[in-house]
Amino acid sequence: MTARSHFKIPKIPEMTIRRLSVYTRCLLQLEEDGVKTISSQELAERFSLNSAQVRKDLAYFGEFGVRGIGYYVSGLKAELQKILGLDREWPVALVGFGNLGSALFHYKGFARQGFRIAVVFDDDPAKAGRSVDGAPILPLRDLPRESKARNLQIAIVAVPAESAQSVTEKLVAAGIKAILNFAPTRIKTGRDVRLKNVDLSIELESLSFYLAQGGR
Amino acid sequence: MTARSHFKIPKIPEMTIRRLSVYTRCLLQLEEDGVKTISSQELAERFSLNSAQVRKDLAYFGEFGVRGIGYYVSGLKAELQKILGLDREWPVALVGFGNLGSALFHYKGFARQGFRIAVVFDDDPAKAGRSVDGAPILPLRDLPRESKARNLQIAIVAVPAESAQSVTEKLVAAGIKAILNFAPTRIKTGRDVRLKNVDLSIELESLSFYLAQGGR
Repeated sequence: MTARSHFKIPKIPEMTIRRLSVYTRCLLQLEEDGVKTISSQELAERFSLNSAQVRKDLAYFGEFGVRGIGYYVSGLKAELQKILGLDREWPVALVGFGNLGSALFHYKGFARQGFRIAVVFDDDPAKAGRSVDGAPILPLRDLPRESKARNLQIAIVAVPAESAQSVTEKLVAAGIKAILNFAPTRIKTGRDVRLKNVDLSIELESLSFYLAQGGR
Repeated sequence: MTARSHFKIPKIPEMTIRRLSVYTRCLLQLEEDGVKTISSQELAERFSLNSAQVRKDLAYFGEFGVRGIGYYVSGLKAELQKILGLDREWPVALVGFGNLGSALFHYKGFARQGFRIAVVFDDDPAKAGRSVDGAPILPLRDLPRESKARNLQIAIVAVPAESAQSVTEKLVAAGIKAILNFAPTRIKTGRDVRLKNVDLSIELESLSFYLAQGGR
């Protein structure tokens, strides 16, 4: 990986960031259950985590534990949300409003974390010009204008594999800084753009691994 | 985590299994490019992996490298596919044929890896009784019979959060051994069933993390 010099972050493992998301969900659950403070051991036991890993992950970002008390649940949750950028709302562009795009648009989990799909792009004349739950569906040529007007920085790509790369290039040209790609293909962005490929079949493979290894 | 005594597997980190899926994809790409052998260093460089990690992950399953040659691309790919259970076809049950279920049904990536959605369950009277691309859509009460007849072991849950737990219990009762849950909620299974929760917003959070930390 090339260093991204404009990001002021030490080298933090991607899995640490992923785990911060998991910790945030655990803390939210604890908060709902009325738990005020928790030790890393209790946290680990309750949610099947590794307590040494929890401490190591958090240590990248500061000293959050209090001797003899542990972590303040609400305080730590708020800190992690801030670190993850969840203390604000992110307007998100969704490109592609087919089966998958439509499902992602309606996915309840995004909005709950502050990711609001503000605009949808799809060149299908049967879709462009309409709107869905208040979000306009626009042709891709409107991307540069909308990107600027709505201060879009994150885009979700849910187009067929064959158009994923060209769509990505248009997003990058329009100033999008982070892309979540659901198209089942490898796409490339420049160094300045964060890209995350979601390959849903990898999730199934970790299940078939256990079934294949299991004594049957 | 409780030990699952009926699985004959040493304690292999979940991330190792996930990475095996990634390595398999890299090897497939190399095979398509006509590459016959590759060292762990070359593999790591070409796909931005960590060569020590590659060696460590593979070492859980055997000795695959040949001194002075590296890995035989096709041979290693086939071995990894076998380990991941990708050397066979898995009939999969999909529960829920709403927006997300429909998108998952049509997701190209599953079939490519040998996961064939053989049957869909949905109690919506407008859907049950129909079929989609050759797969029947059936009411949930048919689950026990179909599970046996089709030797179903894997199910994908794509129902609303509020019905995810009851659906899961029906799947477990019908003998399903592995569940991939897309419903945005925590569900519980017994010890004998492998469960994997997919939380799509975690993927977006790792992007907002970089944007939040980045100098803007």
